[in-house]
Amino acid sequence: MAIQKTLTTAPKPKPTDESKLGFGKIYSDHMFKWNYSEGAWHDPRIEPFGPMLVSPAMSVLHYGQEIFEGMKAYRRKDGGVNLFRPFNNFERLNRSAERMCIPNFPVETAVEGIAELVKADKDWVPGTKGASLYLRPNIIATDEKLGVTTSQTYLFYIIGSPSGPYYANGLAPTSIYVEDEYVRAVRGGTGAAKTAGNYAGSILAGEKAHKAGYDQVLWLDGVEMRYIEEVGSSNIFFMIDDVLVTPKLNGSILSGITRDSTIQLAKDMGIKVEEKHILLEELIEAQEKGRLQESFATGTAAVISPVGKLGYRDKEYLINGGKMGEVASRMYDTLTGIQYGEIEDPHGWVYQVV
Amino acid sequence: MAIQKTLTTAPKPKPTDESKLGFGKIYSDHMFKWNYSEGAWHDPRIEPFGPMLVSPAMSVLHYGQEIFEGMKAYRRKDGGVNLFRPFNNFERLNRSAERMCIPNFPVETAVEGIAELVKADKDWVPGTKGASLYLRPNIIATDEKLGVTTSQTYLFYIIGSPSGPYYANGLAPTSIYVEDEYVRAVRGGTGAAKTAGNYAGSILAGEKAHKAGYDQVLWLDGVEMRYIEEVGSSNIFFMIDDVLVTPKLNGSILSGITRDSTIQLAKDMGIKVEEKHILLEELIEAQEKGRLQESFATGTAAVISPVGKLGYRDKEYLINGGKMGEVASRMYDTLTGIQYGEIEDPHGWVYQVV
Ligand SMILES: Cc1ncc(COP(=O)(O)O)c(C=O)c1O
Ligand SMILES: Cc1ncc(COP(=O)(O)O)c(C=O)c1O
Repeated sequence: MAIQKTLTTAPKPKPTDESKLGFGKIYSDHMFKWNYSEGAWHDPRIEPFGPMLVSPAMSVLHYGQEIFEGMKAYRRKDGGVNLFRPFNNFERLNRSAERMCIPNFPVETAVEGIAELVKADKDWVPGTKGASLYLRPNIIATDEKLGVTTSQTYLFYIIGSPSGPYYANGLAPTSIYVEDEYVRAVRGGTGAAKTAGNYAGSILAGEKAHKAGYDQVLWLDGVEMRYIEEVGSSNIFFMIDDVLVTPKLNGSILSGITRDSTIQLAKDMGIKVEEKHILLEELIEAQEKGRLQESFATGTAAVISPVGKLGYRDKEYLINGGKMGEVASRMYDTLTGIQYGEIEDPHGWVYQVV
Repeated sequence: MAIQKTLTTAPKPKPTDESKLGFGKIYSDHMFKWNYSEGAWHDPRIEPFGPMLVSPAMSVLHYGQEIFEGMKAYRRKDGGVNLFRPFNNFERLNRSAERMCIPNFPVETAVEGIAELVKADKDWVPGTKGASLYLRPNIIATDEKLGVTTSQTYLFYIIGSPSGPYYANGLAPTSIYVEDEYVRAVRGGTGAAKTAGNYAGSILAGEKAHKAGYDQVLWLDGVEMRYIEEVGSSNIFFMIDDVLVTPKLNGSILSGITRDSTIQLAKDMGIKVEEKHILLEELIEAQEKGRLQESFATGTAAVISPVGKLGYRDKEYLINGGKMGEVASRMYDTLTGIQYGEIEDPHGWVYQVV
């Protein structure tokens, strides 16, 4: 599909100090837009980034029919710009769409759209390793109606935000707190979809963890509250007895692209990987017996984020002495090496757009 | 707090045929707005209804931090206009606010705001019994940021929509389908809050029920999937052995104002009421043994909506021969009688604004 381009005549000043970018605070000059109405996606286009005029009765503002993605554009040493597995993100967005009764879209046009956006905003892609142009594809229900039924019209848009590392303290190990009161997701619910309500519902537990002095929430399953699911908005991995284990996808866990890449790269490194149901009590036992070697969270925003401390009720467990582990470190180097185009890309994950 | 008023200079034509209103499709001339920033609610005001300019990075569009209410303005025979228990709705909105990390607001100002809106739009309140000016208070997170943390700024607004009966077929008994795959809410989740994500997550099950030929979904609890919780966006009541039973509030059920009013009015009528955990299998047994006398759903939008048919897997059960029951009928007459100011209001629920 041809993507119409209307470029800005008033480019904004770019951030001068990349070390002060923060995460998701400033926006690049353009955005991608694509409308759905009368049963079809139409008019994919690049426009200047700017405010949108919406009805106070716009459906998404009341009933949250929305899905999104999180991606990044990485600056290569040669000045080019890479995307990472963009087809996988848009395929996941289409799976989220099914759960949320939003019409599917052709993935090719979405990839073309994001590539055109990155081309238009290539000068907004930071040059520092660890920084990137964070990209946010979003689909919102735009019907002007009050009624809990699927919208007949949607807006698909993508915005870009030049961002530093997700955690202000970079690769410093994070602390996570086991949440045993609030629930993020339950089988039969929306946890496997990347949709607004999952995140709104998680804020309170996040605040509780922060008040207790922790960085992130470790979520348990919604049924028994005994199985480990995710950490904050990331997937979670543990090295136990030289095996890399991560919770099995069960319908309430988001199927992370970084999780998938990590599993593949670990196998490439000759590490044994197991996706399985992990009981919290099993994990704690492994820790107490010295069998838990290290842990890290994975996500596009946070990349590979080592976990140094686990809090559960009134107990605190230091993982790997509170330090980043060896697997996390190798994984971080390998993954970011591929993303920034510094090392070989054996799986064809990189999609160079500039 | 003083409410500033800016009235429209271009009033829209009002609907001429009240029998064709539908539900939540057209909007009255004004809206109430109230902002939160720098730690305080400020500038409550009435403005012309109209589109709002929002950033594509507005937090609610990504992470769904939002809460809402549903209320109605009822035309009295003497030309006046009633609200019904408005303090209860805004108190519930404040409870939803706590779960969703949205700052509380002074209830008095909200009631004053909705009263001023109804006064400004009094000619938009339909005159037909069963029709009303549906009122939608909404609070949305307005920070321009990508990050799953509570917003520092919010917009509280109320819009009005002249509406006919919620169900096109009026008081005709509805059919409900037991949903045993998708889940609306789970303890520890957001089910007791009136927040966008709960509704987005429910659309798919609603479509499934419609495809199976049913009007609404009967939701089971998220943990065991054996207990009855709600029907669609309503609470549910059953008359079994001359006792009116309804699911006990358990943290995943919305505490309906109509539910509360129904319990009180039933007691006034000398009907025994029990709030308890209701197993689906118990209900089906009661039906099979002829002990289930009638059933109805309650909600501001749907008022009292008799249930004539229950579908569960491949079985169908006709409740009360598929007809509206005697208690539902009395309850509908009493409740709407009070709301429209036709009969005595023994509990001081009516709040007349015009
Ligand atoms: C709930 C949740 N889990 C896990 C992830 C990690 O997924 P990915 O690696 O695709 O970024 C994310 C972020 O997208 C998320 O929001
Ligand atoms: C999920 C849900 N349950 C029940 C109700 C009924 O509540 P009320 O009687 O206050 O309208 C509503 C509507 O507000 C609802 O959205």
